[in-house]
Amino acid sequence: MARKLDGARELLARANRMIANEGVLDAFGHVTMRHPDDPQRYLMSRSRAPELVQPEDVLEFTLDSQPVNPSDVRLYGERVIHGGIYQARPDVNAVCHHHASSILPFCISGMELKPVFHLGATLGERVPFWDARDEFGDTTLIVAKPEEGASLARALGAHWIVLMRRHGATVAGATLEELTFRTIYTARNAALQIQAHALGYVSPLNPAETRLAGEYNLRPGPVARAWEYWNVRLDKAENNWHPRKSKTSPPKKPATKRKTKRRR
Amino acid sequence: MARKLDGARELLARANRMIANEGVLDAFGHVTMRHPDDPQRYLMSRSRAPELVQPEDVLEFTLDSQPVNPSDVRLYGERVIHGGIYQARPDVNAVCHHHASSILPFCISGMELKPVFHLGATLGERVPFWDARDEFGDTTLIVAKPEEGASLARALGAHWIVLMRRHGATVAGATLEELTFRTIYTARNAALQIQAHALGYVSPLNPAETRLAGEYNLRPGPVARAWEYWNVRLDKAENNWHPRKSKTSPPKKPATKRKTKRRR
Amino acid sequence: MARKLDGARELLARANRMIANEGVLDAFGHVTMRHPDDPQRYLMSRSRAPELVQPEDVLEFTLDSQPVNPSDVRLYGERVIHGGIYQARPDVNAVCHHHASSILPFCISGMELKPVFHLGATLGERVPFWDARDEFGDTTLIVAKPEEGASLARALGAHWIVLMRRHGATVAGATLEELTFRTIYTARNAALQIQAHALGYVSPLNPAETRLAGEYNLRPGPVARAWEYWNVRLDKAENNWHPRKSKTSPPKKPATKRKTKRRR
Amino acid sequence: MARKLDGARELLARANRMIANEGVLDAFGHVTMRHPDDPQRYLMSRSRAPELVQPEDVLEFTLDSQPVNPSDVRLYGERVIHGGIYQARPDVNAVCHHHASSILPFCISGMELKPVFHLGATLGERVPFWDARDEFGDTTLIVAKPEEGASLARALGAHWIVLMRRHGATVAGATLEELTFRTIYTARNAALQIQAHALGYVSPLNPAETRLAGEYNLRPGPVARAWEYWNVRLDKAENNWHPRKSKTSPPKKPATKRKTKRRR
Repeated sequence: MARKLDGARELLARANRMIANEGVLDAFGHVTMRHPDDPQRYLMSRSRAPELVQPEDVLEFTLDSQPVNPSDVRLYGERVIHGGIYQARPDVNAVCHHHASSILPFCISGMELKPVFHLGATLGERVPFWDARDEFGDTTLIVAKPEEGASLARALGAHWIVLMRRHGATVAGATLEELTFRTIYTARNAALQIQAHALGYVSPLNPAETRLAGEYNLRPGPVARAWEYWNVRLDKAENNWHPRKSKTSPPKKPATKRKTKRRR
Repeated sequence: MARKLDGARELLARANRMIANEGVLDAFGHVTMRHPDDPQRYLMSRSRAPELVQPEDVLEFTLDSQPVNPSDVRLYGERVIHGGIYQARPDVNAVCHHHASSILPFCISGMELKPVFHLGATLGERVPFWDARDEFGDTTLIVAKPEEGASLARALGAHWIVLMRRHGATVAGATLEELTFRTIYTARNAALQIQAHALGYVSPLNPAETRLAGEYNLRPGPVARAWEYWNVRLDKAENNWHPRKSKTSPPKKPATKRKTKRRR
Repeated sequence: MARKLDGARELLARANRMIANEGVLDAFGHVTMRHPDDPQRYLMSRSRAPELVQPEDVLEFTLDSQPVNPSDVRLYGERVIHGGIYQARPDVNAVCHHHASSILPFCISGMELKPVFHLGATLGERVPFWDARDEFGDTTLIVAKPEEGASLARALGAHWIVLMRRHGATVAGATLEELTFRTIYTARNAALQIQAHALGYVSPLNPAETRLAGEYNLRPGPVARAWEYWNVRLDKAENNWHPRKSKTSPPKKPATKRKTKRRR
Repeated sequence: MARKLDGARELLARANRMIANEGVLDAFGHVTMRHPDDPQRYLMSRSRAPELVQPEDVLEFTLDSQPVNPSDVRLYGERVIHGGIYQARPDVNAVCHHHASSILPFCISGMELKPVFHLGATLGERVPFWDARDEFGDTTLIVAKPEEGASLARALGAHWIVLMRRHGATVAGATLEELTFRTIYTARNAALQIQAHALGYVSPLNPAETRLAGEYNLRPGPVARAWEYWNVRLDKAENNWHPRKSKTSPPKKPATKRKTKRRR
C-alpha cells in the first residue's frame, strides 16, 4: 500500500509538471488526486509552483482540506477548491485549478466557452460560470474558505469544468490521466474559439457530437497516447531525454495499464 | 528493396517529427507515405504522437487500411483518411492529417482559406470544405469508417488540402518533401490570413499568381532548402546538433536527390 | 555591509535576467533597486541588455542619477526614470522600466489598462498615463533629462505603474521581489485584457476587489512562490539546472526570509 | 584585405543566424552586405536557410548579381533585390529580405505600417508599398529578374524599408548592425501596431518624433547593446553559451568598435 501511495505521489508530481510544461499552469494553480486507497483523503503538493513539484512535496489531506500530518510547511491557500469537489463528487478522482491565458478571456468577458473541435468536446455539453461576487460580495477572489469551496463545487454540479469570473478555471477528471487530457485540450479549445470568433463566426459541436466525441477521446487509447507525448516533452524540457534512448528502449508505457486496441 | 523500405521508414519517421517540431502536429495527427516499391500499400506509424515516431514504429498497410502483418500493436483509428486518398489519387504519395491551431479557426468559422502570400500558394486555387455532419449526421467527428474516408477523399477531389469542419485538415503531396512543405506553409498562410483579417482586409493571390507561385515554390530547390532547415531544427530540438558539426561537415543533403540549380 | 551590497548586486542581476527570461524585457529596459544601506543611492547595471546583467555590472548612483564612482563604462541614458522615482517616493525600493509587447498596445491606443484577474490587481486601482509630448513637445521619446524624469515621477504619483505614450511602462515596488511580481503579472494582465476585448466585453475587478486581491497576492507567501518559480526557470534557461538537483537538494529559498505560512 | 573579407563573412553569417533566431527569418529570406573593400560587389550566402548560414557559405557577387567566381553551387533566385538596391543606393551597405509573420499582414491587407513606439521609429517617416502586379502583371511574386529588382529599388527610393504586396519586406541599412536593428525592431513595431489596432485606435509617432527617435536609437550605443544581446541569444540557441563564461570573461564586444558613451 505504501508502494501504491509512492506511485501516486510520483504520478501526481509528474502531472503537475506536465500541465505546467504545456503552458497551462505557471507560478500558480495546482493539480490534485484522490488518495489511491482512501477515498476520504486527497493528495496535493505543499505550496510551490506546479512546474517544480516533486514526489516528496506531495502531502495527504482530509476532504475538509486539513493536512493529515500537520507540519510547519507552507500549504496552498485554495485547498478547499479541491476538498469541496472531492466531497461533492465521488466520481471525481483528480482536480486541476488554473489560470490559463486562453481560458481567462472567457472568465473576463463572460463569453460562453463551447466545444469547437473534437478534442474540445471534453469540455462537456455545458460549462458553468461562477462569480464569487454573487454570493460573497467583494473578496480577494481567492477561494480559501470552506463555504467558498462548497459554493464552487455546487456551481460545477455534474459538469467537468467551471469558469471562475476574473480568476480562472477548475477542471475535474475521473482519473488523473483524463484530467490532464481535459485540462490541456479545453485550454486549447478556448484558444481556438477566440481565433474563430476573430474570423467572425463560431460554429460549435452540437450536443450529440459533444457527447460522442467526448466519450471517444477520453477512452484509454487516446488518453494514453497524449500522456506519453506530454511525458516525453517534459523529459525533454527537464534535460532528461536523449535521442538514442527513444530508439533503443521500448516505448514508454502510460501510467495506467490499458487494454483497448486499434482505435485512433 | 529492403534497404529502400528502410530508407522510407527513416524518412517518414523524420517527417512526422519535423512537422511536429514546427508546431503543426501535437499529440494527435499523422503523416504517411505510399510504399516506395508497391503503390498498393502505404506506410504509417503505429499509434503514437508524431513527435515520438521512430523508424521501427512504421508499419505497412494495404490501401483499404488493413495492416499487412497483423499484430497486437495499437494502430491509428483514422487510417482510412490516408487509405481513401491513396486509392482515389494515384498522383498522391504522401498525406498528413492534422489539427493545427492556425487552420482550425477556419474549420470552426467556415471562413474561406485563401493563398495570401507566395508560399501559401501551395494551397492551390481552391480549398474544399468537408463537414462530416452533411453525410453522416452526428458522429464522433473521427474519420474511422471506410465510407467516411471515401467521402473525405471525394471532397478533396483533385485539390491538395481539404478542411474538415470542427476537426482539422488533411493535406496531400506528390512526394513526402512536397507534403511537408505544403503542410507547414499552408498552416503559416492561415495564421497570416487571420492577422490580415484583423487589420480589416484580405487581398489574396489571384488564380494565375496562385498557380505560378505554387509551381515555383514546389520545385525541388525551394523544397530541399526548407527540408534542410526543418531537419536541422529537429536535430537541435533533439539535442542532436552541435555548433561545430555544421561548420566542418558538408551541408546536409535533402532526402531526395535534386538536379535543378540557381533558383531562389 | 560590503557583503550586504554584494548580495543586493547578485539579487538585482538575477531580477534583471528573470524578468527578461519571462519575456517582459528584451534588448532594452532596466531594473534597479535602492541601495540596501543608503536610501540616497540606488543600484543599476551598466548599459547592457537585462538578460545579460551580472553582479559585477551593477553600479551605484546618487538619486540625481550620477555614478558614485565615475568611470568610462557606458551607462543607461534613462537613469533619471529611476532616480526621479526614488526621490519622489521613499516607499519605493525597486523600479523596472520596460517595453513589454502586451503593455505597448495600451501605450499606443490609449485604451485604459485595468485589473482583469486577481493577479492583475497588483496594477492598483488606477494606472496613470504619461505623454512626453504634453510637456516637452517633440522629443526622442527617451526620458533622459532630469526634468523629464521628475515629470514622469509626478505622473506616477502614489500609484505603482505608469504608462508612457508610444514608449512603454515604468513599474515600482516596495521590494525587488514585489516589483518582479508586479512587473510580470501586470504584463500578463494586459495580454488577457487584449484577448477579452477581442471577445467583446471587459469586466474588470471593482476597486474593493482590486485592493483586496492586490494586498493578498503581494504578501510574502505568493511573492516567494513566484520568485522561486522564475528563479528555477532562469536556471533552466541558463543551463544551470539539473533534474536530479531539484530532487536531492532542499527547495530553493526565496531571496528574502519570509515568516508567513499556510496561505495560498 | 583577405582578413577583412574573412571578418565580413563571419559577421554576415552571424547576422543571418541572429535575425533568424529572433524569428524574423525562417526557411527563406536572406541578409547581405556590401563588400568591405569593393563597393561594386556584395556578399551573400549560397542558397540555404539563413539560420544555417556559415562563413564558408558566403560568396561574392557583382552589383548586377552575378557570382564573381561561378561554380555549380545553388544560389538564391532573388539576388536582384539586393543588387538592385546596392546599385541605386550608395549609402546602403546591408540589405535583408524577409517574410516576417508580423509584417506580412500589412502586405496582405494594405494597411499602412507606421512607427508606433520609439524603437519602431527606425521605420522612417514613410514605408513605401510595392505591388509586383502593377508593373509586371501575374507573376510567381518572386523578384528574380533584373527589371523587377530595379523596380523594387525605385519603390524603396530614399526610404529604409519597402513592403511587397502578398510577399514580404525588404529592409536596408547603412551598416550591417543598423540593418539588423531595423529589421528586428520594425517587425516588432508591426506586431504592436496589429495589437493596438485590435484595441481600436492607433496613435503613431509624428514626423518630428520619428526623425528624432530614429536617429537616437540608431546611434552606435543602442545598436551595439542590442547586437550583444542577439549575439548571446544566438550562442544560447546554438549551445555555445555557458553560465560561467559570461561571469568570468569580459563582456562580449559588439562586432564594430564604437566610441560614443553614456547614452541609453
